Amino acid sequence: MTFVSMLSSAWQRADSLLCVGLDPDPKRIPAGLRARPDPIFEFCRAIVDATADLVCAFKPQIAYFAAQGAEDQLEALITHIHARHPGIPVVLDAKRGDIGSTAEQYAREAFERFQADAVTLNPYLGQDSLEPYLQWTDRGVILLCRTSNPGGADLQSLEVAPGERLYERVARLACERWNPHGQTALVVGATVPQELAQVRRIVGDMPLLVPGIGAQGGDIDATVQAGRRADGRGMMVSSSRAILYAGDGDDFADAARQAALDTRDALRAAVRRSSGTSPRG
Amino acid sequence: MTFVSMLSSAWQRADSLLCVGLDPDPKRIPAGLRARPDPIFEFCRAIVDATADLVCAFKPQIAYFAAQGAEDQLEALITHIHARHPGIPVVLDAKRGDIGSTAEQYAREAFERFQADAVTLNPYLGQDSLEPYLQWTDRGVILLCRTSNPGGADLQSLEVAPGERLYERVARLACERWNPHGQTALVVGATVPQELAQVRRIVGDMPLLVPGIGAQGGDIDATVQAGRRADGRGMMVSSSRAILYAGDGDDFADAARQAALDTRDALRAAVRRSSGTSPRG
Repeated sequence: MTFVSMLSSAWQRADSLLCVGLDPDPKRIPAGLRARPDPIFEFCRAIVDATADLVCAFKPQIAYFAAQGAEDQLEALITHIHARHPGIPVVLDAKRGDIGSTAEQYAREAFERFQADAVTLNPYLGQDSLEPYLQWTDRGVILLCRTSNPGGADLQSLEVAPGERLYERVARLACERWNPHGQTALVVGATVPQELAQVRRIVGDMPLLVPGIGAQGGDIDATVQAGRRADGRGMMVSSSRAILYAGDGDDFADAARQAALDTRDALRAAVRRSSGTSPRG
Repeated sequence: MTFVSMLSSAWQRADSLLCVGLDPDPKRIPAGLRARPDPIFEFCRAIVDATADLVCAFKPQIAYFAAQGAEDQLEALITHIHARHPGIPVVLDAKRGDIGSTAEQYAREAFERFQADAVTLNPYLGQDSLEPYLQWTDRGVILLCRTSNPGGADLQSLEVAPGERLYERVARLACERWNPHGQTALVVGATVPQELAQVRRIVGDMPLLVPGIGAQGGDIDATVQAGRRADGRGMMVSSSRAILYAGDGDDFADAARQAALDTRDALRAAVRRSSGTSPRG
């Protein structure tokens, strides 16, 4: 089963555009877990188990594990997701970007060591930096296109041809040259809906990973209106902190579930409003 | 002691522009080491000890360790370099690029966990993706500018303003906005000397990390002519495979030393030819 078919099934089964980002900041892990041998794993596992029926994907952010030397807990977490919640794709948020044999090593890190179904990549080094990942044809390759942070505009919004900005060129290349096996997707932030809509126009039905709702403040209705496909799907709308840290006591998993449920429902309602019909109707 | 002052001292002490890249491909580690408990560490340590007096820096590539789940061997290697060869800066080649609290985690990975003196970063996400690293004012921040791979031109060579290409904009931003504490450097490949010369014109005396000689085929004379500062220094010219795999038997460390010596001497001679004087004169 490929990443894209797995994702399509997950969208349908869960009727959800929500992707829960797993960014476990050690300082914010509830006190009750901190004395455990594997607190990062335990925290993330509880979030995963409390939200699995509400999501189309999980997105662990490797930096939080790497800073703590806790790669083994990341391995255990992804193993847990695959074993306990089969069919939910795991996107490893790593934003790697390198060339040749180094890129081969990073592909191995993501796909073989961590068994991720997809990985995020940075396109600055161009086509041959992506090829080692594209050879894993059953996995997803999700390229940074337009990011939602203030500095995102420094390079991404530069005009590289009349009427074409750098992020639009990335979107076009992602369609025309960087997707030979149908496994490519893009990261487009939620903070500027017009740009999200523009990427959707360029890439047709390609899946989009959309961070920036929740803690980063993107508007759900405008995001869904701009980024959805005609079938009401096509987006992994990612929320991390607003869900992970919805509660900070022993009931953190219940609080996370409630926050995920609210976000899923808000996304569902936004799809319905934007189309006049339910995505299932 | 800051990264830049450490590097300046190393240039002077070793009279060398050579940076040895530590890219330990498990398939190419000599058979005699493979049965050891920590073969990647043992291999790299032997290379480091055989070449330390010939280099201005070491550059371990984290992907090779990560793919094998061998981060502990990378930690041990950098600890060894600092303990046994103090004063030689360690550049962690990681090409990270992310925002906000995630970038803080990556900075911690590079500077706290691995104790790197500098780290390579990808500028695609712009200023706020760099700030968490710049706050470690004693460490170096080395930004991808123009890479030497074929796909490097896909985005980096696009014209973003009349007469200004994307990599030139990165060089200009690195000078004007992304170097508040004097710790910033750039990665510029050796394969197109005109572009290296153009970056040198833009950035003045900023240090440049220059991969692409050796296995990637850049010409040493043209590279040095294009990238050197007036004082004959200013470059870390990186070579990995041509040194690491100069031999494949039990004498691999001797072969690596000879290859490093030849490269150092070729760089010295190129500096001399390009300036008409010895860099020490």
